[in-house]
Amino acid sequence: MALRAEKLPVLVTREPGGTRTGEQIRRLLLDSAATGVVPMAELALMFASRAQHLSEVIQPALLQGKLVLCDRFTDSSEAYQGGGRELGSEAVLGLHGILCKNLQPDLTILLDSDMERSVDRARRRNRSRTMGTGDENRFEQESRAFFERVRNAYLAIARREPRRVAIVDARGSPDETHHQILQVVRQRLKLKIPTSGSL
Amino acid sequence: MALRAEKLPVLVTREPGGTRTGEQIRRLLLDSAATGVVPMAELALMFASRAQHLSEVIQPALLQGKLVLCDRFTDSSEAYQGGGRELGSEAVLGLHGILCKNLQPDLTILLDSDMERSVDRARRRNRSRTMGTGDENRFEQESRAFFERVRNAYLAIARREPRRVAIVDARGSPDETHHQILQVVRQRLKLKIPTSGSL
Repeated sequence: MALRAEKLPVLVTREPGGTRTGEQIRRLLLDSAATGVVPMAELALMFASRAQHLSEVIQPALLQGKLVLCDRFTDSSEAYQGGGRELGSEAVLGLHGILCKNLQPDLTILLDSDMERSVDRARRRNRSRTMGTGDENRFEQESRAFFERVRNAYLAIARREPRRVAIVDARGSPDETHHQILQVVRQRLKLKIPTSGSL
Repeated sequence: MALRAEKLPVLVTREPGGTRTGEQIRRLLLDSAATGVVPMAELALMFASRAQHLSEVIQPALLQGKLVLCDRFTDSSEAYQGGGRELGSEAVLGLHGILCKNLQPDLTILLDSDMERSVDRARRRNRSRTMGTGDENRFEQESRAFFERVRNAYLAIARREPRRVAIVDARGSPDETHHQILQVVRQRLKLKIPTSGSL
């Protein structure tokens, strides 16, 4: 909204999804616990959605001079499937090279929070499934280890590519976080984008 | 049936499909003309189905000492997406390395026919769509060129890996083709499989 207020031509989109095929894949992934999708298949599905999204949405928008704001991209696959599911970064970056020709955003904002919030969300999600089965601790331990691997993988990407990835502390209020994000966007992108005028 | 008659433990399966996730992906691909799936996304979906199939069906069967008979595998992706859709062999083999750890069958039977039959099938499939639109010739020309690229890619794989891939002439009667296939299977696999007894 803040970027639109500056009259910048912005396209907001998300992954997985963003296209008709992508939404079909998203539904298939939401069903994945029931159908037992293995990590390598999950990774390939994420990239199928991404390849479609790039070709159908992102690249045409960039060619029209638009600013594309995308909720999650290859970094998320590297963090969740590479780190969380332990497939490793090499497999993820290999697929990114082949299927996305290594295209990366000019700027990636990493919203970093603490472990407790992630684990809390997973706990609430799983409580109904594990109620009374005595599995609460196993789920909690597993999800704690999983989210720790995800967060570590995200932070490793930020260390590896500091010019592209900016870490924003998301533990404050939504307003504080929003303010920080805007500061980073203005600082990092002002070299490329005028603050007014038609891009 | 002939292999089962020899009391060999055989598992017959197919791609894309062969698992619940794979069948969902298969349906998504059958719908792909309507949703406009791009070639790279199609390739990633094929490999998502394959990774699931390998992990859920093929590898467990091999570990139980079964003989797995699979209708289409990575060669088909190399022929259709690599050759037909012109993504190239390198992209397909790259995904195969990452997602399938380069696992290949001991023996692949390539049923080679002539161009006319493939084009005939495509013509019948498209007639209803193009009826009266004057697009018949374009479709026919496109499908002829497409199937020529597919066949050339298949033949190039057979030349590259003659020990694994056996070409069988499929222009004769079904009985003749069946006879030839059995001969090839017996010749090539007799080194590894006894003609009777429990494997």
